[in-house]
Amino acid sequence: MPNSNMQMENKPLPAALLEQLRAQLGPDGVLVDAGQLEVASRTCIPYREIPAAVVYPTSVEQVQSVVRTANEFGVPVWPVSTGKNWGYGEKTACYPGGITMILNRMNRIWHVDEELGYAVVEPGVTYKQLNDYLKEHGSGFWADTAGSTQYASVLGNALDKGRGLTPYADHFGCLCGMDVVLPDGTLLETGGGPQGNNEVRYTYKWGVGPYLDGLFAQSNLGIVVSAGIWLMPAPERFDFAAFEYTASEDEFGPFIDDLRRLVFAGALRARPHLANDFAMMCILSQYPHELLGGARCLSEEAAAVWRKRYGVARWTFGCGLYGSPEEIKFQKRSIKRTLGRYGLIRFVGMSIKENWLGQAFRQLVRIANRMLGKADGFYEAMIPAINLFRGIPTDHFVRQAYFKSHKEKPSGDIDPARDQCGFIWIGPVLPFTSRHVLRGMDLAKPIFARHEFDFFVEVIIESARSVIFLAGVFYDRNDAAEADRAKAWYHDMHEAFLQNGYPTYRATTMNMAGALDQNPVSKAVLGSLKQALDPQNLIAPGRYGTPMRDSD
Amino acid sequence: MPNSNMQMENKPLPAALLEQLRAQLGPDGVLVDAGQLEVASRTCIPYREIPAAVVYPTSVEQVQSVVRTANEFGVPVWPVSTGKNWGYGEKTACYPGGITMILNRMNRIWHVDEELGYAVVEPGVTYKQLNDYLKEHGSGFWADTAGSTQYASVLGNALDKGRGLTPYADHFGCLCGMDVVLPDGTLLETGGGPQGNNEVRYTYKWGVGPYLDGLFAQSNLGIVVSAGIWLMPAPERFDFAAFEYTASEDEFGPFIDDLRRLVFAGALRARPHLANDFAMMCILSQYPHELLGGARCLSEEAAAVWRKRYGVARWTFGCGLYGSPEEIKFQKRSIKRTLGRYGLIRFVGMSIKENWLGQAFRQLVRIANRMLGKADGFYEAMIPAINLFRGIPTDHFVRQAYFKSHKEKPSGDIDPARDQCGFIWIGPVLPFTSRHVLRGMDLAKPIFARHEFDFFVEVIIESARSVIFLAGVFYDRNDAAEADRAKAWYHDMHEAFLQNGYPTYRATTMNMAGALDQNPVSKAVLGSLKQALDPQNLIAPGRYGTPMRDSD
Repeated sequence: MPNSNMQMENKPLPAALLEQLRAQLGPDGVLVDAGQLEVASRTCIPYREIPAAVVYPTSVEQVQSVVRTANEFGVPVWPVSTGKNWGYGEKTACYPGGITMILNRMNRIWHVDEELGYAVVEPGVTYKQLNDYLKEHGSGFWADTAGSTQYASVLGNALDKGRGLTPYADHFGCLCGMDVVLPDGTLLETGGGPQGNNEVRYTYKWGVGPYLDGLFAQSNLGIVVSAGIWLMPAPERFDFAAFEYTASEDEFGPFIDDLRRLVFAGALRARPHLANDFAMMCILSQYPHELLGGARCLSEEAAAVWRKRYGVARWTFGCGLYGSPEEIKFQKRSIKRTLGRYGLIRFVGMSIKENWLGQAFRQLVRIANRMLGKADGFYEAMIPAINLFRGIPTDHFVRQAYFKSHKEKPSGDIDPARDQCGFIWIGPVLPFTSRHVLRGMDLAKPIFARHEFDFFVEVIIESARSVIFLAGVFYDRNDAAEADRAKAWYHDMHEAFLQNGYPTYRATTMNMAGALDQNPVSKAVLGSLKQALDPQNLIAPGRYGTPMRDSD
Repeated sequence: MPNSNMQMENKPLPAALLEQLRAQLGPDGVLVDAGQLEVASRTCIPYREIPAAVVYPTSVEQVQSVVRTANEFGVPVWPVSTGKNWGYGEKTACYPGGITMILNRMNRIWHVDEELGYAVVEPGVTYKQLNDYLKEHGSGFWADTAGSTQYASVLGNALDKGRGLTPYADHFGCLCGMDVVLPDGTLLETGGGPQGNNEVRYTYKWGVGPYLDGLFAQSNLGIVVSAGIWLMPAPERFDFAAFEYTASEDEFGPFIDDLRRLVFAGALRARPHLANDFAMMCILSQYPHELLGGARCLSEEAAAVWRKRYGVARWTFGCGLYGSPEEIKFQKRSIKRTLGRYGLIRFVGMSIKENWLGQAFRQLVRIANRMLGKADGFYEAMIPAINLFRGIPTDHFVRQAYFKSHKEKPSGDIDPARDQCGFIWIGPVLPFTSRHVLRGMDLAKPIFARHEFDFFVEVIIESARSVIFLAGVFYDRNDAAEADRAKAWYHDMHEAFLQNGYPTYRATTMNMAGALDQNPVSKAVLGSLKQALDPQNLIAPGRYGTPMRDSD
């Protein structure tokens, strides 16, 4: 599966090419030192290739010139925004050698429109940067954020179909209007309206003629150098529901169907992650190696002991509520009435108030938690969790990357790839019904058991119609046998879910070239489009199902 | 502008080709009689071309075989769903000759999913058919409908980026998962998931890899032979607000900005059309030729007399309210508080009740209308108007097509193209701010005046960020001079709005080939994609900015 048809090799780049790149980007915009390349290309997934050079353009013109130079020399370019898609592939290409283009220095916020609710940003703009900007300017809008790191790219995540947590969680769906450097270096302004003078390019999504923006999602047909992203109007009121599942296991199906009904009814407007016990433990704790008793993963009994120590339920989710007072009332009423029978619901939105009331409320929550036998980690995670649901990014949760490979979670300077945290995500998409979610559980559990990993799953509400069944494993990045076990787990998960009709919402770099193998007509169509726009196959060859290069 | 580079001519088709078509579709699936072709290709717009044959496939296999035959003989195929896009081009191609493919006989509803809220339909399925199906099966979901005719194609409208009125008004946005016959006859299943076995193709929009569905909107890259369309969950409560603008003209700007705020706040969830006085009059009345006094359009004074006779305000809109009792309460409160200062608001949702209460309420409305000096036409339009906002289609409003060219509106058997009603729409998209809407008014009015047409506009709320400034003229289809005047009006509107940065949301067939002229890079990219998928340029050449054929 890992790109078996790959035949490229890591050849040094011609001196003339490097000279051109340096002339275009300046000496500090081009990296060729072997040590630096090794660090820059580190990954969390059990796969990594080292490029021949890394370049850091700072402008559209520089991106264009690099692409033109690459064409001249026939060298492939693998563009990433900031490469902080931890557990999906980070900055590595799916082949050795070539030029990796990192866009983190293109980090301008071109415009925030306070009337029409959108921002126009470059690919280097991070969640933190956009959120800080909005707060500093007293904006009436919120930017949704991914749940991973605040230093991830707003555009990079959206273009890879990443997700957030507010009603604007569909990041790709919120993109509207792009500037794209095409494989021949031309700059495309999408939308089809008058080029350079299109008043609605960031407000009207479908444009004139075929909708082309979609071509640049999970794609190598061009390099998006800026785009509009829709912002969410700050609601009149905000509250937060914390839910813990305490019902018996055979109520889980009806619970899932009831969740869907809440989403359809507009009573649940956020896009929460329903985390299983192990997924919660990764946040609250470090891995209890001492409970393994010689095994590679925790026994049912050991897991129960450990879970109980922290007061973690089988399933947990938090969820923002949004709207007018009447709407909040409706949402609370519906959530209580519908989910009350499955577990414990607490409305803790008050705790974000920055006055004495908020302070008092927070203390109450802390005391109540202790009375319920919960670890203080719950309390510490509460504000960051609530903030995610109002678009305020955090690094609180990405620290879980250090959960198994390190003694403790870091307090600052988090870089799981650099620090060699081994973990990998897979997110099959399932229809949002009990039948499919239960089938997902039945498929996943034996695969975790077979490969001796602890069962980690978050059921992410994608919409009223789909969930993402996000599963993951933590492994030792420096233990080849364990890395192979993680790979084998990924392979089996991927195959089992695909065979049951559940494609993944994102591929990892290690299986990208095969991403469309189960849909040969799609693969052929995409191959024709790629050939038409990038006849030399130079931009990110192999990304998401387009052909690899036969040789370099 | 009307396809000036068109060099094709209407040559008779080779006998061998016709023989193949007849063998594939049966004799009644192929039309070549000159009289029938003339009727089948009639239009409301001042442009029409007559094809060499019309074919009516009934299955995917037949569509594929026609496409393969067309490839073999190098003859272009212009596919339409039902061709009831009155005022945009109907069934005519943008070149003479070739094969027109009408898909109205492919009218199966493959599946309606009551858990996940979607339908899978063929292009011949009409709004009426889908709505009837849902009602007969006691569905918990509503299908949005276009405001024009109940016999329009659900898919045809969505693929041309047509609009409805409920919260699911964005018809293209509601499509998810397509089967597409490509120009070489291959069948593409979009979504990128496992072909023939993708459980989420109708529930998860973005699929694996680049999102390809967008390529088939306003497009000639393939023929969509079925697609999933998302349905709206029937809300717990429904109500309806009727609004008439009575404030002074200089309040119109603030009014527009307040409307936008209502949409952003979720207080206005429908997608209403704000109709000017003339647009309302087309529904309520027939054209008052007797008030022209020798002129070609009504004087300000004549229009005022006429308007007053019917009790029509400067601006009118109706709008559905949806949700729980609390949410309806919030919506009513917000609409009253925000729009009360601009005019008269009445909540008349009660009138759709089919019990004594509804009957009594309807009588009250009728009496109140008369007291307000309103024509009975208001009362007659009320139920059809309310129904549009709960997805129940009607032919009440499309009868306005007969407003100027005919003595009276028909009561049944409506076919404006067959009956030679002359009218044409243009819908530039504007950012949803007072500045842009007022500029739209300033641009449009002198163009109407210059070409001596009465000023007709509906400001359609597309989203919180954009409006469609839908303008139209009625003209005599059989008066060549008046048709030229309509064409010239269209041309000037198109140019003026484009120059100000406002592209149209749909092209008419008479200007399709130039649809992307203002965005040469988009046009070139689309040309490359077209070349890659349809090297002979046989599927609808010239549609939405792709090249015309040099010769036939």
